[in-house]
Amino acid sequence: MELTEDGLLSAVRKVLSGAGPEVVVPIGDDAAVVRPGSGDLVLTTDALVEGTHFDRGLSTAHEIGYKAIAVNVSDIAAMAASPRYALCALTLPGDLDAAWAMELFGGMREACGEFGCTLVGGNLARGPEITVAVTLTGEVAPGRAVTRSGARPGQAVVATGLLGGAAAGLRFARRGPPWDEQERDAILRLAKPVPRVGEAQLLAGRGATAMIDVSDGLAIDLSRLCAASGVGVRLELARVRVHPAATLQDALGGGEDYELVATLPRPGVAEAAAELDRTFGTPLTQIGSVTDAGLVATDPDGREHALEPDGWDHFA
Amino acid sequence: MELTEDGLLSAVRKVLSGAGPEVVVPIGDDAAVVRPGSGDLVLTTDALVEGTHFDRGLSTAHEIGYKAIAVNVSDIAAMAASPRYALCALTLPGDLDAAWAMELFGGMREACGEFGCTLVGGNLARGPEITVAVTLTGEVAPGRAVTRSGARPGQAVVATGLLGGAAAGLRFARRGPPWDEQERDAILRLAKPVPRVGEAQLLAGRGATAMIDVSDGLAIDLSRLCAASGVGVRLELARVRVHPAATLQDALGGGEDYELVATLPRPGVAEAAAELDRTFGTPLTQIGSVTDAGLVATDPDGREHALEPDGWDHFA
Repeated sequence: MELTEDGLLSAVRKVLSGAGPEVVVPIGDDAAVVRPGSGDLVLTTDALVEGTHFDRGLSTAHEIGYKAIAVNVSDIAAMAASPRYALCALTLPGDLDAAWAMELFGGMREACGEFGCTLVGGNLARGPEITVAVTLTGEVAPGRAVTRSGARPGQAVVATGLLGGAAAGLRFARRGPPWDEQERDAILRLAKPVPRVGEAQLLAGRGATAMIDVSDGLAIDLSRLCAASGVGVRLELARVRVHPAATLQDALGGGEDYELVATLPRPGVAEAAAELDRTFGTPLTQIGSVTDAGLVATDPDGREHALEPDGWDHFA
Repeated sequence: MELTEDGLLSAVRKVLSGAGPEVVVPIGDDAAVVRPGSGDLVLTTDALVEGTHFDRGLSTAHEIGYKAIAVNVSDIAAMAASPRYALCALTLPGDLDAAWAMELFGGMREACGEFGCTLVGGNLARGPEITVAVTLTGEVAPGRAVTRSGARPGQAVVATGLLGGAAAGLRFARRGPPWDEQERDAILRLAKPVPRVGEAQLLAGRGATAMIDVSDGLAIDLSRLCAASGVGVRLELARVRVHPAATLQDALGGGEDYELVATLPRPGVAEAAAELDRTFGTPLTQIGSVTDAGLVATDPDGREHALEPDGWDHFA
């Protein structure tokens, strides 16, 4: 099947699960029209580029489509918002089979279904390599978005789930099979990340003062939270929950885990952790504390090091 | 200056004209947060890809940034909506100078200022060639968006401005100087298109039943309007207003003019044209009529031809 914008668009419409009740004009017109909710409108965009973010030899089109939605859902989640509407600006080589693009949209559809959002806009352009640029809207009760900038000294720094799995998974995928069970799980974390939408809203309800998703690595994402809040963080390395197939360096510098890091008033941490476990089965761990300034890591034996935002090489 | 996402982001913040009063969380967090208006939310995305949509030898970074916003504004305009918030997912080669990217954002800023929208989100990824994927939101009074699907037989087909200039301009730009005044104007239409935001709203107020912007060429865009409305169009070739430096073939198959094509009840055409001229100095021309089915073009001597959606080659 030859790849034309109109042809792909009409095929995509069949793949899509259908417009929700708030969609006034679905995909296929000059622009989509939706009836917004009563909350604040949250907006984010993130692209996956072939050769930089994925390799067609290691990922299926379905996985790439799924992940393109999921990484944007993670950004919406990190504001404590709910995902709503997705748009995708796709750049594809002219010689690519249309079946590949359909499989990509199939992956987007699965992710949209899973995270409760609707694909309402698309654009197809020709280019030498594949770029999947997704924009996602979200909604949050007015004034209730959790930014990166509310952390205050004395508060606890918490993280959901396990870190480092995605970076380790990339290593295992490149190495090739056979994989043991933990290695398979790490590869799955890379291919199909689970954005923490419900967890983020629960943390917001428990008074989270700042929140960020771990997309580029714990160290650099913590440094961004510190910069936005004008604070420092003391990270206790022994408390960081590392994926069983990963290293501490994977957790600090690897990225793509899409777990949440948040700051909370200390008294609320234990209860938030219990509730997160009860509601979602997701672990929540206090990994450090907010300080006045500086990003430092504490060794298990109590020694402090400056934590470099670009990863863990200094501690290797 | 080396190009890093955080570095570019902080530079971009300085370039941007600043957040409007409805921007709760501006660019730089996991996602932006805005307070939506009371109208329907309009969403569109469109990308410019190096080698496909622009050539760094022919366009400045400023022009590319300006155009990336303008083409999206044109899609919002074609729904009779007002542009509001822009996001940009940028793919840049690692060896590109940061000054180029800053100039690109300067162009976006100029366009955002001109069309009344605010850049609230950005993402930077590495890739072998430049892709500028912009998503734009807009607002329209509830239920008042004008789609492509409302055209009915017997109505008039109207177009704003002059067509074919952008396609001719590309030819002149590639040929190189010297350029006469009309050739310069054609090149300007390619480099700096003028989306018809106010004109579209005026046409909507005058009862436009369907509307589309001419991004890919009059013939294919008319065929899309026909398909969406389930109607045909008889296009009177002698009435198509062609840019003085362009050919009829440029107008029918060239694209990138970003003029509007709309359908209107016949009795309202003369008054709409007078008002468009009075308010914006923009000409409005009846170029044909809506029919039951089929896309045909009428020669000046009255002969009818099937109008091929992919351009004008059959009539050349």
